[in-house]
Parts: sequence; structure tokens; C-alpha cells
Amino acid sequence: MVLKDVKVVKIEDVEPVPVEQGEKTYIRVLFSVSEAPTYSMRIFEMEPGGHIYAHKHPWEHEILVLEGRVRIRVEDKVFDLEPGTAIFIPPNRVHEYWNVGSSRARFVCVIPVRPTA
Amino acid sequence: MVLKDVKVVKIEDVEPVPVEQGEKTYIRVLFSVSEAPTYSMRIFEMEPGGHIYAHKHPWEHEILVLEGRVRIRVEDKVFDLEPGTAIFIPPNRVHEYWNVGSSRARFVCVIPVRPTA
Repeated sequence: MVLKDVKVVKIEDVEPVPVEQGEKTYIRVLFSVSEAPTYSMRIFEMEPGGHIYAHKHPWEHEILVLEGRVRIRVEDKVFDLEPGTAIFIPPNRVHEYWNVGSSRARFVCVIPVRPTA
Repeated sequence: MVLKDVKVVKIEDVEPVPVEQGEKTYIRVLFSVSEAPTYSMRIFEMEPGGHIYAHKHPWEHEILVLEGRVRIRVEDKVFDLEPGTAIFIPPNRVHEYWNVGSSRARFVCVIPVRPTA
């Protein structure tokens, strides 16, 4: 059911759900693919040592790091990202994430509600 | 030209551009509507006293407040938002923003690259 009205949501009020294809990593969905008309906004939280396993899918990511130190591999390239850094990951690229810091890492990740490519 | 490869960008490395329909407010475009396939991610910065005038358009916003205190009016409703709070604003609603705090306010705002409604 696509949102027809304003929705206000605090990150802390959304229950964190463990990411199945990862370790020590949680997702909080702010605007879901079923309620958003075009793109869904989610918060990922990775404890120290957290890992999201390598995967790929036919849609892009636009990510902004909010806290901590996030290492992202996209195919054969590795990026170490700090708060205030954003990354665009094109569709159909193998990507993988690690928290390489000693504190919680947090990033906002936007995906389209329908496959892009 | 839609992005075909990874793009990494730091907020601080993007030149802030004054928002024409506002005061004391700047935009930094991380992934533009011409380079992103589905949605564009932008950072807004409002100095104390900053204001974005009332306007509307046929696309939604998904916004996450990063810093400061942002007041948003959507039609006849007013929301005071703090860091870690997100808001979905549907297409075709009159909306208006103020920095109501004493420090810089900053939020990430995502829009679709094509009109939604």
C-alpha cells in the first residue's frame, strides 16, 4: 500500500532486524519497498566485526555513511568509507561490507522499489 | 549520462550551492538526477534562520535529518524534526522548511529522477 500521507519515523523507534546474509548486522526500514512509491530508505547498523556477505542484485544502491568505518568491496575494488562519504553501487555488481572500526557503523542505504536493470 | 560505475563522493568535496527559493540554505548534490538511474541523493544545509519557501512538485521526498533542528510544514501540518528522524512527503503537497535551532541544520533528501505523480 503506497503511502498517501506524510510519514514521520525515528530510527530508534524502528525495530532492528538481523540481516540474514550477514553477521552482527541489523536493518531498520524507514520507508519500505511496499509503502514507498519509488525508492526505499533503510538504516544499516554493523557492530564491530560486522559483515554483510558478498551478493548482487539488479538494482543500485545509494549509501551515505553516518557513523563508524565501513569497508565496501564492489567486484575487485575496495573502498574505506567514513561518515559523510557516499557511494553509488550500480546494479548487478557483487558487493560486500565490513565494519572495520572499533565502534558501531551506521549507514543509510536507498534502493529502488522495482529492479532497475 | 547515467552512472555505469561506482561513484564515491564526500559531502565536503561537493560545492554547496545556494537554494534559490530559500534563504541561508545550500544544497550539495551527491548523485544527481542526470547521473542516477532512479533517485537522486542531496544534502541540504540550513544556517540558523535558514528557510526554504513553500513550494510543491509532482514527486515525493524521503528525508533524514542529520544535524540540527528542522521544522517542516506539509500543507496544514507542522513537524519539528531532530537528528535521526525521517519524513516522507508525498507528491503534490505544499511544503516548507525552517532551521529553528541555533546551529547548522543538515538533512539528506532523496527525490526520484522522474516525476512520480
